[in-house]
Amino acid sequence: MSTPDTVHSTSVRLRVFSLNCWGIRYLSKHCAQRYAMIGDLVVKEQYDVVLLQEVWSEKDFDSLTKKLACSHPYGHYFKSGVIGSGLAIFSKYRIQDTFRYRYSLNGYPYMLNHGDWFGGKAVGMAVLNIGNTTAHFYVTHLHAEYSREKDSYLPHRVVQAWELQHFIRYTSAEADVVILAGDFNMHPMDLGNRLLRTYADLRDAYVETPKFDGCEDGGTMIADNPNNDMIPSEKGIRIDYILFKGSARVELHCESMSTTKGHVPDHTFPYSDHEALTAELRLDRVTQDRSPGDGPLARGSDRTAGKLAELVDIVTEARTEVKVGLHCAQGMCYTAARTGVMGLVLLLLELAIAAVPWLALGAQQPFPSVSFYLLGALCFAILLTTFLLYVFYTMEIKCLQEAEDQMRLAVGCLQERLRGFPLASHRRAPGAPESRPGAVEPEELRGMRKGVLTEA
Amino acid sequence: MSTPDTVHSTSVRLRVFSLNCWGIRYLSKHCAQRYAMIGDLVVKEQYDVVLLQEVWSEKDFDSLTKKLACSHPYGHYFKSGVIGSGLAIFSKYRIQDTFRYRYSLNGYPYMLNHGDWFGGKAVGMAVLNIGNTTAHFYVTHLHAEYSREKDSYLPHRVVQAWELQHFIRYTSAEADVVILAGDFNMHPMDLGNRLLRTYADLRDAYVETPKFDGCEDGGTMIADNPNNDMIPSEKGIRIDYILFKGSARVELHCESMSTTKGHVPDHTFPYSDHEALTAELRLDRVTQDRSPGDGPLARGSDRTAGKLAELVDIVTEARTEVKVGLHCAQGMCYTAARTGVMGLVLLLLELAIAAVPWLALGAQQPFPSVSFYLLGALCFAILLTTFLLYVFYTMEIKCLQEAEDQMRLAVGCLQERLRGFPLASHRRAPGAPESRPGAVEPEELRGMRKGVLTEA
Repeated sequence: MSTPDTVHSTSVRLRVFSLNCWGIRYLSKHCAQRYAMIGDLVVKEQYDVVLLQEVWSEKDFDSLTKKLACSHPYGHYFKSGVIGSGLAIFSKYRIQDTFRYRYSLNGYPYMLNHGDWFGGKAVGMAVLNIGNTTAHFYVTHLHAEYSREKDSYLPHRVVQAWELQHFIRYTSAEADVVILAGDFNMHPMDLGNRLLRTYADLRDAYVETPKFDGCEDGGTMIADNPNNDMIPSEKGIRIDYILFKGSARVELHCESMSTTKGHVPDHTFPYSDHEALTAELRLDRVTQDRSPGDGPLARGSDRTAGKLAELVDIVTEARTEVKVGLHCAQGMCYTAARTGVMGLVLLLLELAIAAVPWLALGAQQPFPSVSFYLLGALCFAILLTTFLLYVFYTMEIKCLQEAEDQMRLAVGCLQERLRGFPLASHRRAPGAPESRPGAVEPEELRGMRKGVLTEA
Repeated sequence: MSTPDTVHSTSVRLRVFSLNCWGIRYLSKHCAQRYAMIGDLVVKEQYDVVLLQEVWSEKDFDSLTKKLACSHPYGHYFKSGVIGSGLAIFSKYRIQDTFRYRYSLNGYPYMLNHGDWFGGKAVGMAVLNIGNTTAHFYVTHLHAEYSREKDSYLPHRVVQAWELQHFIRYTSAEADVVILAGDFNMHPMDLGNRLLRTYADLRDAYVETPKFDGCEDGGTMIADNPNNDMIPSEKGIRIDYILFKGSARVELHCESMSTTKGHVPDHTFPYSDHEALTAELRLDRVTQDRSPGDGPLARGSDRTAGKLAELVDIVTEARTEVKVGLHCAQGMCYTAARTGVMGLVLLLLELAIAAVPWLALGAQQPFPSVSFYLLGALCFAILLTTFLLYVFYTMEIKCLQEAEDQMRLAVGCLQERLRGFPLASHRRAPGAPESRPGAVEPEELRGMRKGVLTEA
């Protein structure tokens, strides 16, 4: 909001478009036709910046580049993983620089039916100069949620959200404007979403806009979309977002927002299985700089104390979730090691049975050679598979431990800052020991985790 | 240097220590004793911040944590890869936050004798508040150079240096002081080193210091060190560094620097196979802020035009190196795919030979069952290995392409900025087409690459 002591010299309007394109060649329905429709829409609507996800084929990115050559001459495809991150940006403004952060954790390579691991999920950053404003655009796609009730990927997604907020917080210090769009695969009040919004101080365009035209409750995966057969609720869910923040130099407001509504006029199928998001943002350059301490984490205001306390709760909740993931990963690592040892013992046993009678009774095999070789091959396959799994789970454990360490450190520092506020006593006892930040565990999680975890 | 219009209100002195600990349990000589010596040294010398590499075992980090509990109560171990990144930090000042960036490329998992891949090489960042100064400390360890003449890991190391400068540039915008230390595995004038120093605008403590006490030419891997049997030159090489930069708010100077010199008094063996580095830095807070445009990449000075031109040359050289790596990776990927197809054909052929006589002539095997099963197992092993290699090389190609794309974009933007300077014409023709930044290839590389590359 404008305060009396700020003076706006110029206003710039920026139209940002985001869509998960569902671009799996030969598997997604009407893939080529849908890309043609998306290209037509972008050219017609003349968005300033277009942030796309699930552009799984570089050929499709290249065809879009050709189509948008006149309207959006600048583009970048963020390459990652085995098949590419699927993330792309097109812009009317020149892209000055790009950077990419690949998430440490992103599912399992053997889950071929899910396939997220092969996508090398990441966050892509593009630096744009819009007039005299430096804008950092981020596009991302987090791990999919295949079951809301039994979501085995939740710790991975929470770590991704943790790394995303870290990346945005540290890389956006010089930016006048920060805009993040993408498919988060998280509902609005999901843990990762709260963590991201609160820690990186990002505002949700759907919540902030005074004018919204789109699906009920801002849904971006809706039952009305014929491509979508995974909707758990009748209304649909909101898992795609445009988030933003300004700076001490530029105020940013969302003037209006819209989504597509499943069906597209004059076409028999929609743009994607997700709905497309469009946000119209207004950039107001502030001639009298606000104090850099105006952010929610600065010292000296009640709002800040509240924010800090909220953040402590959220990070603690995230830490608990990571610990659950760690517990599972350690279990799987142990199982892989145990199975590997069993395979080795079986192989040695077989060799011993084969070798001892030969040494003692001559060159006759004690059991049929077909069984002998099949059993040998089986042992070898077990050994190789368990070795690869062991290596993979060890890496997963390291990443989860690193995230947990970072969270523990962050909670400690946030609590120390919180102790500086007189209002902090409203939220927690001032004498609460810093070494046990896990104590502030939310009620609903506490029961669930009971007996599963040991406090670090 | 202090300028007449700056006023220093306070000066703070900071002693920074960096060492590659060579901490491979059971393999490195006198590992436990050396850790004890390192701990004693750190306690005795009372360094402010200690940045360690190759702490491969977390147990050793934990034992150091115990030893330094009184002198350096704050520490963090950066977990990554299969065995950990080996990176650690100890500090007298509270660590406010940590963040870690794992490099996209880091050798090959099948190179077990080199083992870099298992280390999950990364750059670790720690945020420290030193008085009212925000200091960002970075510790890193890049891929080792096993052969200077035929360095097959050069493209990986160049991409690591590229990602490192990107990471530091973007995450240090809010920092008053930036200090990077580690084992870069690069000589002072190596491509990656020039790229890092020039783009991230970092100053080399060894070059800047007016007072140096250490090995000849600042060597950190010297022939005098009995643990070191890999020295190519008699004098030794300088591959470990402490780099730094200040900001508009804080001026940073290196007052003195020293290295260990192989032998340690009263001990029969040295601290490591590398020499330890110590830099004494002076932080002067500038009360009258300098313009943020005082950095080397700001507009409007001759020095800047020169820097930009130098940067264009360096990034172009790096891009060429990445292209060479891309060419090799594509070749290896193709070989893996071809071998996989051959394995599949062999397997089908074997099955056909086994099946057809059975169908035609009855249940008799056409060749001995031992050979049949061994050949089958061989085919299966070929298929599995080539599949894994194909997946790995595809990921390597994506990462190299991403780095190359980023470099092409960066060169284009740097050239555009350069064209704004009248002095730019001294360096290159003003009409040089922007779409061919690869044209500015240094002479020595041009011949080497001839015929190998096709221009993107």
